[in-house]
Amino acid sequence: MVPYHFPQGGKVDTLWLEMKQVWYFDNAATTKISDRALHAYIEASNEDWGNPSSRHKAGREARALLEGNRATLASLLGVSANQLFFTACSTESNAIVLQSLLWSPQPGHVIIPSIEHNAVKGYVRLLKEKGWNVSLVDAPEGFVDPDTIASLLTPQTRMVAIMLVNNVTGTIQPVKEIVQICKDYQATHGGRKIHVHTDATQALGKIPFRLTDLGVDSAAFSAHKLQGPKGVGLLYNTDPAVIGLSRGGEQEAALRPGTENTPGIAAMTVAVQDALSSLDAHYEQAVHLNHMIRIELDGVVQFLTPTKGSSPWILNITTDTYPSEVFTRMLYDADFCVSAGSACSNNAQGKQESVITAMRFSPAQARGSIRISLGYQTTEQEVMLLCQTIRHLLGRG
Amino acid sequence: MVPYHFPQGGKVDTLWLEMKQVWYFDNAATTKISDRALHAYIEASNEDWGNPSSRHKAGREARALLEGNRATLASLLGVSANQLFFTACSTESNAIVLQSLLWSPQPGHVIIPSIEHNAVKGYVRLLKEKGWNVSLVDAPEGFVDPDTIASLLTPQTRMVAIMLVNNVTGTIQPVKEIVQICKDYQATHGGRKIHVHTDATQALGKIPFRLTDLGVDSAAFSAHKLQGPKGVGLLYNTDPAVIGLSRGGEQEAALRPGTENTPGIAAMTVAVQDALSSLDAHYEQAVHLNHMIRIELDGVVQFLTPTKGSSPWILNITTDTYPSEVFTRMLYDADFCVSAGSACSNNAQGKQESVITAMRFSPAQARGSIRISLGYQTTEQEVMLLCQTIRHLLGRG
Repeated sequence: MVPYHFPQGGKVDTLWLEMKQVWYFDNAATTKISDRALHAYIEASNEDWGNPSSRHKAGREARALLEGNRATLASLLGVSANQLFFTACSTESNAIVLQSLLWSPQPGHVIIPSIEHNAVKGYVRLLKEKGWNVSLVDAPEGFVDPDTIASLLTPQTRMVAIMLVNNVTGTIQPVKEIVQICKDYQATHGGRKIHVHTDATQALGKIPFRLTDLGVDSAAFSAHKLQGPKGVGLLYNTDPAVIGLSRGGEQEAALRPGTENTPGIAAMTVAVQDALSSLDAHYEQAVHLNHMIRIELDGVVQFLTPTKGSSPWILNITTDTYPSEVFTRMLYDADFCVSAGSACSNNAQGKQESVITAMRFSPAQARGSIRISLGYQTTEQEVMLLCQTIRHLLGRG
Repeated sequence: MVPYHFPQGGKVDTLWLEMKQVWYFDNAATTKISDRALHAYIEASNEDWGNPSSRHKAGREARALLEGNRATLASLLGVSANQLFFTACSTESNAIVLQSLLWSPQPGHVIIPSIEHNAVKGYVRLLKEKGWNVSLVDAPEGFVDPDTIASLLTPQTRMVAIMLVNNVTGTIQPVKEIVQICKDYQATHGGRKIHVHTDATQALGKIPFRLTDLGVDSAAFSAHKLQGPKGVGLLYNTDPAVIGLSRGGEQEAALRPGTENTPGIAAMTVAVQDALSSLDAHYEQAVHLNHMIRIELDGVVQFLTPTKGSSPWILNITTDTYPSEVFTRMLYDADFCVSAGSACSNNAQGKQESVITAMRFSPAQARGSIRISLGYQTTEQEVMLLCQTIRHLLGRG
């Protein structure tokens, strides 16, 4: 363990230190389920464990739980209950929308930023194989330029996929502007509908937004990023052209067949409820901690995450001193959890680099890039410890 | 509540009766998670909640849990750990295998029995749209005839999907024989591989079988059918030609991207462990209870489930007196949970009827069909009460 001492003479509670197993700064990868969400899981498992498709009492109780949770989530998100579909994860929510394209008998044109998570960008090759024309767009300094999107629209454009918060740098993308551009294009060119999909995995419970304000046709969410359960996701969809490729029962309006994970759904609802009811306070805290890191590491590292227009929960830093796989390992050895790439690509350095490169940072900056992601439980003390350790490891302690 | 009295002068414990909310005979639809499985879920949620793709301590612990569970399941199922893939449910496990066909650039021929669950049979239309030649085969008296399969094989045959235990009648299909027929055909005709897939959802933990003995190329399982958690499934696959259609992270060898539901997987492992370690005792009990029902309802109802070659856990009965939607409602009103169709098709009567019809029972028999499915917790007392109630409702009490 790296020695620590607080610059302002602050003291670290030794007992607290010993109780902690790790210093967790990888909340964009996953979070620990909250006690309240876990309690909801246990309660639903014990009380409402029937199959919601069964028409007997056990089934009807489970159905009531399922639809009650859908209604609660709809109210929290300001949408209609029949626009929400329960899935296993954001990856699956994205898949349902993207696979709808693959299945289309008439390939068209689709616009996908290079900074999208692989759960969206991963379809580029398949789409091309199926005859689609795919425009991959860069995101200079972290942001997709709405004008670039506007310049790429054609009468054949069927979809624009644009994430709300980038998972590597935290940059907030101009989703609302892009929706407006697509609507304007449709209106002036009398063309067919351009579906705008947003992967909002890193946005829900982290930054304030309204789906109806963004105006997107569909959005993907995951419960485990906001202290909900793993294995539960949500799809918002308003476009009847989106049709599930999976077959089975008629669950989730046939968009997502398979017996519903009612306990997981109940737990997700509690997590979303808690996250949204504390959003202002959490956001303030994240802004504060983010600011602390920027001050503490000023001149020590470079910040790839722009100060303006980014989610306060994600801070991507880089150094010339070590490549990120070396520097993250030094931090791991000191029991710090950060990320050298989005966790879901198995930290494949190449993938994070390609996102960073698409943001037009230099190869050297990309090579040293490390993602720090804050959570609801992150404390000042932990942040100070992380910054001290980074400075120490870089010989600037 | 229907009055009850035991024919052999047995007495029902009134307190026990009041404690029970429902009489649950719909275990083929879903089961309540066991305390031990739920405990495993809670423990993993609290202890190993990291993202298995993260390389730091929290991630490595979650990865160890994940791979430990995979190894345990592999050992329990007598297969290699790298042949097991975690999914969200049987429906998804089936989807991965069936969608691999859809995606194939060269459509071929596939054989699918009409008695398959819609998670398999649901792809027939899509396959046909993509140029596949689909042979739908009936199952006279509940069983697919291996000779029929043999007669349908062509050099273009790429897959035979054949469920192990039918979910509506419990009939055990001749999977092993069909695998052998396909292998023989390949050997004698020098043709390309014929993949044999089995949906084993109603078999795992219910009847004894070995995947390597069956010789199938792939198999689908679901945890919630055997007192495991909802939202967790398993795919066994040995065929490199099966490729996931979903895109995202590299999880589950890219067959099933998305952050792994580690707590759910830990819970499933415990459920499978418990189910297999008690399989003999459970099976005996199911045979006994099944026999009791057949004796108690002898001459009162017709049994569509054949005595020989069926899983003891599922008993499909029919009467001339009421259509099943009426009779099930009468049973529901008496707080009995049975099924008029597989729950996952939202009890759509048509679907169960089509399965029953494919078994060449008469339309009248199909119309009155009701599925009774037993579980590990089902007692003699409950079975007696169900039989008494059925007799009472049919005026034979």
